[in-house]
Amino acid sequence: MTEVIDKLNWRYATKKFDPAKKVADEKLEHILEAIRLAPTSSGLQPFEVFVITNPEIRAKIQAVGWNQSQISESSHLLVFAAWDNITADRVNMMFDLTNEQRGFINEGWEAYRKQLLGIVAARTEQANFDAAARQAYIALGVAMVAAAFEGVDATPMEGFDPAAVDEILSLKERNLRSVVLLPIGYRQPEGDWLVNLKKVRRSRPNLITEIA
Amino acid sequence: MTEVIDKLNWRYATKKFDPAKKVADEKLEHILEAIRLAPTSSGLQPFEVFVITNPEIRAKIQAVGWNQSQISESSHLLVFAAWDNITADRVNMMFDLTNEQRGFINEGWEAYRKQLLGIVAARTEQANFDAAARQAYIALGVAMVAAAFEGVDATPMEGFDPAAVDEILSLKERNLRSVVLLPIGYRQPEGDWLVNLKKVRRSRPNLITEIA
Repeated sequence: MTEVIDKLNWRYATKKFDPAKKVADEKLEHILEAIRLAPTSSGLQPFEVFVITNPEIRAKIQAVGWNQSQISESSHLLVFAAWDNITADRVNMMFDLTNEQRGFINEGWEAYRKQLLGIVAARTEQANFDAAARQAYIALGVAMVAAAFEGVDATPMEGFDPAAVDEILSLKERNLRSVVLLPIGYRQPEGDWLVNLKKVRRSRPNLITEIA
Repeated sequence: MTEVIDKLNWRYATKKFDPAKKVADEKLEHILEAIRLAPTSSGLQPFEVFVITNPEIRAKIQAVGWNQSQISESSHLLVFAAWDNITADRVNMMFDLTNEQRGFINEGWEAYRKQLLGIVAARTEQANFDAAARQAYIALGVAMVAAAFEGVDATPMEGFDPAAVDEILSLKERNLRSVVLLPIGYRQPEGDWLVNLKKVRRSRPNLITEIA
């Protein structure tokens, strides 16, 4: 049993948060830093994360989020929003940042920039969005592990109307589209129907195939 | 600095693996168990993972994978393949497994099964595949953290022809579609152009917005 496995066994999709318990700033920053460090395809990080504590905005999101109480009762609501398209400007922003941070221009990296610009230009906007959304889910996975290491509960949620959340957060103006919510905070075992139920996963042979 | 952040800083997209160094069974099992425990939407785990050591099959995949050497030179090649569709049978398989494992039928869970069956039936096959693919990326993120905790290098790779990999692994017959590769093993710093370059990430203000 490694610590990662231990933490994954500890966590669960919290159904009832204790609205009185807040995640300390330091812990929140650790989770956000893990998100920032999450690997993404071509290093693009094609998403943004909104950390919402404002009660009015959370109430609005809850109203378009199947009325799930975690949206308002958690300590912080994280909204992952993917780029609505992977444009040349956005690709160039990341490649320029890389050159700037590394202090030199890498020839192979520049050749790859040209190749990637060709790939994203040849895809539809929807295909680029779908590719961006997948990257946000890598960060979501990393965030859930990081939260568990902080002893912080987290509930990934897809049960909401993305277009309505985009409207509430004015994401269209930022060329973003919401893809997944992650309320974080502390479980309130009384009133949480899932807390004491067995975690169910497919068996190893059902999920993993070895080809030797 | 937490351990998760430390591990995320340690890892990088290894460009050159040492073909002589193999990941020990115990470490591999820890990584696979982390994948198995990764959270997914509605607990469906709508993907499978192939662990490939066979050299002929890896050579074939490398040929349709931009000829990237990590595919053959890593210790193990993991292929994440998502469900090509989220069918009623597959939803029922997971809900039945849940009832069986928990030893009772939860009324709320049964109501949710009906709701979910309606949702996936109303979506196109492509939309269900896209939703399944996103879940595989959660497991990918978790796997990369788990690998780093084992001191194992891992390189997420989207640069391959998914249809060709599906053909090589006969995934269509299993109603699966390949979405991402993850070679794991040990870096060979000589010959790896990336190993000594600075990890570049967008700044916190560029990635995170607080709405208080």
